[in-house]
Amino acid sequence: MTRLPSCVRRCQPSVLLPGLLQAQPVSSYAWNQELTKLCQQRHFIMEDDSGYGPLGTELKNNLAELWWRSVVSLREQVFGISTLHQQRPTAAATSTPIGLIDKNALHTILHDSQLNKKEMAKSIESLLHNQIGLRTSLLQGALEHYVPSLALLNRKLPFGLAEMGTCYRPIHAEEPNGKVKTGESFMASLVWFSSPQTSAQWLEYWLRHRMLWWRKFAVSPSDFSSSELQNADGNREVRIQYNFSGGTETLETLCSLGDEVLVSRCVGSKAKLQCREGRKSVIPHVLSISSCLDTGVRTYLHNSFQEMGSVHTKRRLLQRKVLKLHPSLTPVKVALDMGRGPSNELRQVCEGLLQELQEQAISVWPGYLETASISMEQQLIRYDEMGVLFTILVNDVTLENGIAQLRNRDTSIREMMHISEISSFLTKYITAARRM
Amino acid sequence: MTRLPSCVRRCQPSVLLPGLLQAQPVSSYAWNQELTKLCQQRHFIMEDDSGYGPLGTELKNNLAELWWRSVVSLREQVFGISTLHQQRPTAAATSTPIGLIDKNALHTILHDSQLNKKEMAKSIESLLHNQIGLRTSLLQGALEHYVPSLALLNRKLPFGLAEMGTCYRPIHAEEPNGKVKTGESFMASLVWFSSPQTSAQWLEYWLRHRMLWWRKFAVSPSDFSSSELQNADGNREVRIQYNFSGGTETLETLCSLGDEVLVSRCVGSKAKLQCREGRKSVIPHVLSISSCLDTGVRTYLHNSFQEMGSVHTKRRLLQRKVLKLHPSLTPVKVALDMGRGPSNELRQVCEGLLQELQEQAISVWPGYLETASISMEQQLIRYDEMGVLFTILVNDVTLENGIAQLRNRDTSIREMMHISEISSFLTKYITAARRM
Repeated sequence: MTRLPSCVRRCQPSVLLPGLLQAQPVSSYAWNQELTKLCQQRHFIMEDDSGYGPLGTELKNNLAELWWRSVVSLREQVFGISTLHQQRPTAAATSTPIGLIDKNALHTILHDSQLNKKEMAKSIESLLHNQIGLRTSLLQGALEHYVPSLALLNRKLPFGLAEMGTCYRPIHAEEPNGKVKTGESFMASLVWFSSPQTSAQWLEYWLRHRMLWWRKFAVSPSDFSSSELQNADGNREVRIQYNFSGGTETLETLCSLGDEVLVSRCVGSKAKLQCREGRKSVIPHVLSISSCLDTGVRTYLHNSFQEMGSVHTKRRLLQRKVLKLHPSLTPVKVALDMGRGPSNELRQVCEGLLQELQEQAISVWPGYLETASISMEQQLIRYDEMGVLFTILVNDVTLENGIAQLRNRDTSIREMMHISEISSFLTKYITAARRM
Repeated sequence: MTRLPSCVRRCQPSVLLPGLLQAQPVSSYAWNQELTKLCQQRHFIMEDDSGYGPLGTELKNNLAELWWRSVVSLREQVFGISTLHQQRPTAAATSTPIGLIDKNALHTILHDSQLNKKEMAKSIESLLHNQIGLRTSLLQGALEHYVPSLALLNRKLPFGLAEMGTCYRPIHAEEPNGKVKTGESFMASLVWFSSPQTSAQWLEYWLRHRMLWWRKFAVSPSDFSSSELQNADGNREVRIQYNFSGGTETLETLCSLGDEVLVSRCVGSKAKLQCREGRKSVIPHVLSISSCLDTGVRTYLHNSFQEMGSVHTKRRLLQRKVLKLHPSLTPVKVALDMGRGPSNELRQVCEGLLQELQEQAISVWPGYLETASISMEQQLIRYDEMGVLFTILVNDVTLENGIAQLRNRDTSIREMMHISEISSFLTKYITAARRM
């Protein structure tokens, strides 16, 4: 069993799902109360911190899709893989702190009156020894896929194996009763194999690439920084960090691992590990790039949150808060609302437009179905808090000449546009933002 | 704690990840040797059954994306959610057979010489009692999100909560040593809330919808069937099944659960459970629709596998095998290869085309980078086994007049097309196939 390099052991998700923040307040500074309240109220994060609400789920999915596209889909040398959450008994024995246990089997042992204390302990030890653990990182899975993947590439370097998925680590609660909560983190990992000569350059390449990627979707890119250290194994490790108001958190860790992680796994001949770099045969060096996308979600929520001053509505003065999430990230691209006019006809217009937008894979909030009596000003305040990019308002004017109002979240500007042009305008807007 | 209805307990993934088939040969009949070999060789499934290779990963992702699009993105009343893999202690106590255990804490107890047998058993019991278990279905998570979601919809029925993710159940190996392997399954779940009056119609609606969806991507749709039963709780349950050569397996379970699962979870007033159907307030009935997407992947691999007779190559006679995976599902849409001609120039043409296709989100296999000496016939045999939809061949003719060869996997027909038209042809082809 390969012992995980210290940087990988350490670069476990330092920030966990919202659900676990209470248990270990790593990032109590990271969220001010206003933002927390808004994220819960607008269904990004559950009030009882048990995962993501509909908007948070969509945001997380968008982030994951962008990561996958940037790291896997647009690269010929990167392959996606999918490994088990459980780690093999051989690996699990020393590496995973969380064991899976068959409760029934354990109960049987505990209630076996014929066993003495020593025998009971022994039975339980053996039960535990045979148990499978849960993965704490995605590195092991990629290393297991290394040899089989060589056939795909005719042993040609460099190449990478990418995976996204949940990883686990225990969080010790304060009580010493052994209560364990697993810190679940949704991780994205690229394990990159290159020749020993080029591995340092690749670290630089990927650091630059990944930093640009994180910054691309940010309102204030300067809140992202990197810091380098040499870890206990003498390997280079670079962390991409985000500066939450009050402190920084690690979003991603790039760790140069040499060839040891491959060699130490190899039983027998090393020949099967070898790849080609030009005409030479080499055992590649391994670079592990691991991001916590849960931290990514919180990062972009924090980065995009702006308090904009007050808005007068008919009833009262309201503080306007906006989530200026990047067009590619924001869960709802457009809200569709009806103004004054015959509601049956307007509803039909909305339904047609909804379908057209959905076919273009543009996510729509069907505000026209809203039955609560709420003013358009209040709706817009709500949409800004949801990060909705555009709001379309159709009314009796639309029925006359086809012109609807299109309101931009970031500028608050309302422009008039023919409804037949809206779908292609939005598609172009979102595509352009992604390419920038 | 709500006891799970029997149909949900039973409709746990009956078919597991490939990795676990050895432990419990549920579906030994389902895979003939030829298909297994092909799926391993072509990197769909790992040879040691530890997950998916690059092509299998892409296939699974495509299937998941299609499911999400059909159930969530295209519907105003369905919201995606994301819950934890671990189940809360209250729920875990009775419902999950797999406990998570902190190995270190258990070791400490086992090696505590001051404890007698009884005390040791008690300590372990309490350790176990506090443990968190892993979810066995996605239903619990959706029920937990029910009340918070009501605010999103202004309590208007019907609506649904959807989630995709891994679920776990133990597989008992034959040895009685308590060794436990968790059966991991990638599940997709829709929990649908409707008024009591309409719940039976909704079951029919969703059964029809889901059946059409499964059949849409199949080569022989008649291999899908449904069977209805009344389960132990007296609820209706319908299973969508696939007929593997040799036996059927359940792909999806639709289970009518009444309102009991909601009511029994509710502490105190039932008012907060109530929704509106027209002007009436009702407690909705729950319909659980749960699919195993791992079984889905195997289903489509099986369904699309065809042995086509022999092909003569220069060296030998080969059996031609094709995976006729649906254009939306197949992991590689197009392979890009070079024929005769000046290789530098041809490579440039390929790179330009590759980039253009990738920007259209069309997945490309860069065959032109292949360094092994392999004939085009052998390449095509390989591509058919990978399910590659089209193969583009550029050669010296392309350099002269821009015309490349486009070979169709399903018809084996090769047509000539100008390279500037290929990208839009493929986009239209794939979009049309998805809409059919």
